[in-house]
Amino acid sequence: MFLRNYWYVAAWGHEVGRQILARTICGEPMVLYRTADGKVAAIEDRCCHRQMPLSKGWLEGDTVRCGYHGLRFDAAGKCVEIPGQPNIPPRARVRTFPVAEKWKWVWVWTGDADKADPALIPDMHWNDDPDWISTGSTTYVRGNYQLISDNLLDLTHETYIHRTSLGNQAVVERPINVTGDDRSVTVTRWMYDHEPAPFWRRAIGVPDNCDRWQIIHFTPPANLVLDVGVAITGTGAPEGDRSRGVEGRNLNCITPETENTTWYFWAFARRFQKHDHALTEKLKNAVADIFKEDTAAIEAQQQVIDRSTGRPVIDVNADAGSIMARRMVARLLAEEATQADAALQRRA
Amino acid sequence: MFLRNYWYVAAWGHEVGRQILARTICGEPMVLYRTADGKVAAIEDRCCHRQMPLSKGWLEGDTVRCGYHGLRFDAAGKCVEIPGQPNIPPRARVRTFPVAEKWKWVWVWTGDADKADPALIPDMHWNDDPDWISTGSTTYVRGNYQLISDNLLDLTHETYIHRTSLGNQAVVERPINVTGDDRSVTVTRWMYDHEPAPFWRRAIGVPDNCDRWQIIHFTPPANLVLDVGVAITGTGAPEGDRSRGVEGRNLNCITPETENTTWYFWAFARRFQKHDHALTEKLKNAVADIFKEDTAAIEAQQQVIDRSTGRPVIDVNADAGSIMARRMVARLLAEEATQADAALQRRA
Amino acid sequence: MFLRNYWYVAAWGHEVGRQILARTICGEPMVLYRTADGKVAAIEDRCCHRQMPLSKGWLEGDTVRCGYHGLRFDAAGKCVEIPGQPNIPPRARVRTFPVAEKWKWVWVWTGDADKADPALIPDMHWNDDPDWISTGSTTYVRGNYQLISDNLLDLTHETYIHRTSLGNQAVVERPINVTGDDRSVTVTRWMYDHEPAPFWRRAIGVPDNCDRWQIIHFTPPANLVLDVGVAITGTGAPEGDRSRGVEGRNLNCITPETENTTWYFWAFARRFQKHDHALTEKLKNAVADIFKEDTAAIEAQQQVIDRSTGRPVIDVNADAGSIMARRMVARLLAEEATQADAALQRRA
Repeated sequence: MFLRNYWYVAAWGHEVGRQILARTICGEPMVLYRTADGKVAAIEDRCCHRQMPLSKGWLEGDTVRCGYHGLRFDAAGKCVEIPGQPNIPPRARVRTFPVAEKWKWVWVWTGDADKADPALIPDMHWNDDPDWISTGSTTYVRGNYQLISDNLLDLTHETYIHRTSLGNQAVVERPINVTGDDRSVTVTRWMYDHEPAPFWRRAIGVPDNCDRWQIIHFTPPANLVLDVGVAITGTGAPEGDRSRGVEGRNLNCITPETENTTWYFWAFARRFQKHDHALTEKLKNAVADIFKEDTAAIEAQQQVIDRSTGRPVIDVNADAGSIMARRMVARLLAEEATQADAALQRRA
Repeated sequence: MFLRNYWYVAAWGHEVGRQILARTICGEPMVLYRTADGKVAAIEDRCCHRQMPLSKGWLEGDTVRCGYHGLRFDAAGKCVEIPGQPNIPPRARVRTFPVAEKWKWVWVWTGDADKADPALIPDMHWNDDPDWISTGSTTYVRGNYQLISDNLLDLTHETYIHRTSLGNQAVVERPINVTGDDRSVTVTRWMYDHEPAPFWRRAIGVPDNCDRWQIIHFTPPANLVLDVGVAITGTGAPEGDRSRGVEGRNLNCITPETENTTWYFWAFARRFQKHDHALTEKLKNAVADIFKEDTAAIEAQQQVIDRSTGRPVIDVNADAGSIMARRMVARLLAEEATQADAALQRRA
Repeated sequence: MFLRNYWYVAAWGHEVGRQILARTICGEPMVLYRTADGKVAAIEDRCCHRQMPLSKGWLEGDTVRCGYHGLRFDAAGKCVEIPGQPNIPPRARVRTFPVAEKWKWVWVWTGDADKADPALIPDMHWNDDPDWISTGSTTYVRGNYQLISDNLLDLTHETYIHRTSLGNQAVVERPINVTGDDRSVTVTRWMYDHEPAPFWRRAIGVPDNCDRWQIIHFTPPANLVLDVGVAITGTGAPEGDRSRGVEGRNLNCITPETENTTWYFWAFARRFQKHDHALTEKLKNAVADIFKEDTAAIEAQQQVIDRSTGRPVIDVNADAGSIMARRMVARLLAEEATQADAALQRRA
């Protein structure tokens, strides 16, 4: 069960071009491609004739030719050619999905098309802002998408899973502050005057003690902006001036492929050493390695969940953010179900 | 659900000898072998003692020895030895399947044994006729058997899937004529005075324009004889005299292994250049390559079908033959179910 | 469904040390390790916080640290640390399993802990007795555990599966004697004055005719001691004096992992040529090879069983022991179910 009336990242902009990209988003197999004018189209990956995946076909101009019997569909999902047959029945069409391209990502909408307002795309401007330099990639995870948002909303795991990069004792010892409203959750942790974890020691590049912050902004279904960084203790970061520190935004757009598999799109944007391209490449690899550690944990968790032991679980204080986020998603799912029922009754 | 009172090809004759061949036909695992007199036996691939597959055992004379505790069964399925035990209970037997060998193929019958009349074997004489030279092989397909008969009953796919060999625009542009009775379907297409597709251009060996024909004879469950060929335009083929053209019969016996896997036995018989053995070998490889293209399409289709989207499908004009064939199979399945019910009531 | 109030071998003693061993016993994933005092602990392989397998964590002293968020559990299953949180709720604990170490093996109990009496561990002293020399290993079988006890209770299969080592005609031709009480089954076969099978010919090392015995002691759920050996005919073995023969004990502890997978722990203890270490190594390999032959048969059987043909099976005389053993296990399962119901009612 997925939230439907939301934008999900389906691909990086650079992945979609003048050839077919097949991807399944929220259980919907689709074909993504650019039309000649550069816009992205997303249509159902299934010919309405004999159920051949359209992704086994090819582009002809702005249309997709099915590779089996040659039916051709335009970017609006309409069949525009049935080989050897002059008339095309109006029912000959495939589903399309609203698409928007923003912040270097291609977003799709699997809910009601008339609600697909691009203004609802979550703010990920750091990925595409000249004041920042950003790098990122995609991680494929064999686990439910909420296990990834849980992971990002409770960073105490850094001390154990990422102990050679992001983690140290401060991350578990310092308390979090959790706030939220009906559409967002924010988890904040400050670690003052301490020896920073290896990743941040390398980033700041000096041996002084630092203040470190982790400010996690969650919006549903599973978009997370992590405002993270360190500044030398005494330079004013806790008081609000982080300009003399090194500051990053870890951007996370977590897209369900199926109930138990996930496309995890992420980026790391920074304001420090912006023109050091070698550092950009290094950071991309470092973050990818860190997310491989998370992936191993999440996939192991999913396997235990799949066994459905029925044995009890407990929550700890550090779960406050992820519990709030999961409750929000559950409430929004219930609201969508109620709206869908009401719509059915109006039609009846 | 399979039609039961029908002959299905289980193997090529040359595959069955004085050793055990295990094969599953219509969901029935069986062991095939030749007795000393050269006849083929087909018995259940499961020892009635402790359910060991008999295919893990070995032949002793005309009997099969189970490889676990040594029970021995004859070609009639009767247990003829229980090691260390003089008496053999009459219930100690395994199921047998009627077998016939014809047209180079071994046919088995998984329905009522008393209805297994060899006269019901479909006519595939071209595979074994001195006036023809035939070559063929077996393709294993991870898809339902009816997807293969659909494929053969609508050859417009040649234009897309086999565009480097059998396909050209004529195949989709020229109309088909579909006829049938209660036990067969025939789909006919003539393509006059055109540049033939590469496969046929090579076969005719001259640069002239040709008339090409495709006459598809279907009989249930899924036997198809394709009468195909080309003749130089003006030499009388459309009028009934194909003797100056190059003429082939593509023979197709499509045997379900399970609901979603299929043994596809095929041959290509021809009357042209009969003594050119290099051509025979070349044709075998060419047809095998063509069927690999079909297999890829059918397996992709099956995966979409397995997702059970529930989304609508449309039919096109070119489906007329396959729709008629599927309706026939559905009707015959219903008739078999009715007959089975009636037989049960007679016994009660 | 498994018998619960029984000891099952979970590992060889030498497999468990100061690091984590993950193993699933009767469907219960557990973590095994030794505490500093050398005792073995067995706790649930699932953190009670976010269901991470504890086997992905590590030992710290006598406790297990979860590798995800760092919760720490002692050998009694109690959570002793929640990082960054002073209070630990009493519900923060994981299940533990009673453990005993005996006869070189680590035994666990998945039933009621208060019934876990080490006196109930079956007698396997030959594995650990200075009068004997023993060697053994573990075989992983993709089949239900009772298929292995069936195998060991009917040794006629040696004639077919192990015809190059243990089997000859005598094994199937000589009758068995089956006795038992409510907690054990014994199957006895004597083969007098015959050319022994290759394995025993090599063991006795002389060309004389021999008397061979197979005395199989079964106790539930699936522990089997096979008293096996040969003596030169005329030296008194059938009359009770086997001291001049070569005598072995094949020890078999068969532990379900899941319904269809099994950890099969086995050893071969002997009194002959006790100090010949090369022979010990050779016997270990020979028995392992023999059990590979059994494994192939059992896995093939399981695949047929999984098809659930519903077709009838017959029993033969040689099944008398395995039938008695299976009836005993079925009766004991019913008794355990009755006891569990009664316990539930007492609580209500």
